[in-house]
Amino acid sequence: MTEQEIARRIQAGRDFITKAFPEDADYLTDQELKRPQPPLAKAPMGGELYDLPTDFSSLPIDRDFLHVINSRKSCRVYTGEPIALTALSYLLWCAQGVKAVRGQRYATLRTVACGGARHEFECYLALQGVTGLPDGLYHYLPMTHQIERLPDAADRAAFITRSLCGQSWGAKANAVFYFSCVFYRAEWRYGVYAHPVVLIDSGHITQNLYLAAASIGLGGCAVAAVEPACANAAFGLDGREESIFYAMPVGAVRPEDHAAEDAFYAFVKQEGL
Amino acid sequence: MTEQEIARRIQAGRDFITKAFPEDADYLTDQELKRPQPPLAKAPMGGELYDLPTDFSSLPIDRDFLHVINSRKSCRVYTGEPIALTALSYLLWCAQGVKAVRGQRYATLRTVACGGARHEFECYLALQGVTGLPDGLYHYLPMTHQIERLPDAADRAAFITRSLCGQSWGAKANAVFYFSCVFYRAEWRYGVYAHPVVLIDSGHITQNLYLAAASIGLGGCAVAAVEPACANAAFGLDGREESIFYAMPVGAVRPEDHAAEDAFYAFVKQEGL
Repeated sequence: MTEQEIARRIQAGRDFITKAFPEDADYLTDQELKRPQPPLAKAPMGGELYDLPTDFSSLPIDRDFLHVINSRKSCRVYTGEPIALTALSYLLWCAQGVKAVRGQRYATLRTVACGGARHEFECYLALQGVTGLPDGLYHYLPMTHQIERLPDAADRAAFITRSLCGQSWGAKANAVFYFSCVFYRAEWRYGVYAHPVVLIDSGHITQNLYLAAASIGLGGCAVAAVEPACANAAFGLDGREESIFYAMPVGAVRPEDHAAEDAFYAFVKQEGL
Repeated sequence: MTEQEIARRIQAGRDFITKAFPEDADYLTDQELKRPQPPLAKAPMGGELYDLPTDFSSLPIDRDFLHVINSRKSCRVYTGEPIALTALSYLLWCAQGVKAVRGQRYATLRTVACGGARHEFECYLALQGVTGLPDGLYHYLPMTHQIERLPDAADRAAFITRSLCGQSWGAKANAVFYFSCVFYRAEWRYGVYAHPVVLIDSGHITQNLYLAAASIGLGGCAVAAVEPACANAAFGLDGREESIFYAMPVGAVRPEDHAAEDAFYAFVKQEGL
């Protein structure tokens, strides 16, 4: 890459963050044009449905909020022990749960913040070692708090690793959360200005997921380095109107694996950073 | 804006989210080139320093984590009652607090997740009605958990409203958090691929801030519609190497103001959405 091209991309990236786009006073979004609104969530894809438990009283939820905040960290080493279906349900609830619908069907109010309450995301899962569920690929249905089973990957571990750009530690997680964006759900309201806000909103989800995992003794690590084409193919997404762009493996962890966690940062010591 | 230009921008935005940029196998980031790392936090800007209390035991922190998750919502109506300095300190801690430093000075480990632990953000504040602090503009110093006072805006309410693209409700908050990005802190490690991740990381911060506010009975609402030039000028930022791009007013709230909150969504009922 030439120095000139590097500089051009850096500037384009900075402009995107600061939303330094030319404004156009005449521009109207589809919402302003009163065009019909897209659905608040994707319709079920036809897979076998599983209800998720909504009574979380069996979970050992940490009652010290500040301890949850302070103990949250990235965890990439998982024990392989199974996790309860209620734990998975709790993670999904905290990440994308629908608390209410505003208006007839104007917006969903969820457990996470989202610009204009668009909640333009869908959540897909690679599950292995969730008690009571067949291992495989799933899609979360937020309106009914269910998951539906999709066709599995031929080699699930290889798929997870490839979808995370070669990060093989993710393949040992009990649940890999893949987040897609259904672009028009945000663009209907925000038009050409939608896209930086989509990324901000996705961070809301993973911070809640980190905290929810920490609050019940699980661990995870969000991953921006995903291969959209690989992940989209596995879950049957077109990649144009909807594309996976972000993921987070979550699994059972134990304190004794701290040393193995530290190995991910061995270069810091080696290079004297 | 022509239909063609709209389509071009929509596609560019989607490509940015899915990081659909041409990869270049030869490209090396500055970290890979072993170039010196930028500082982990901005140096104090020379303002009067205020220590922030770190004993949060006086705060009525909600002990039901799930209740905090479920009760979080956007709050744009503030009572104007003062908030305690300890509450402000707690909010800053949950948003950007430094728990540890990795290596000699390789990375800060904070209360929020961040790609590569770059923590490329600075936090600036417009404060009014924080007990024991003069109203005005401040800068958070995460390494020492202090704030420093900066020159105030001539008309603070007008500044806040303008910086939030005309959203005057923000000017009644006790604390408006303005988040800047110090671009090279992320670019050093991620180079031309840094920028989508910056936006995701900023969402981690505001979700924690939402929850922290909810956990002590305060309320806020994150705002992506900021005027970088206006906010940068107020806090003395150059806008090129560092620029504000995101904000969140937080203030004292009371349940009786639900009706006033609902007024922000009156259009949903009026338009039968």
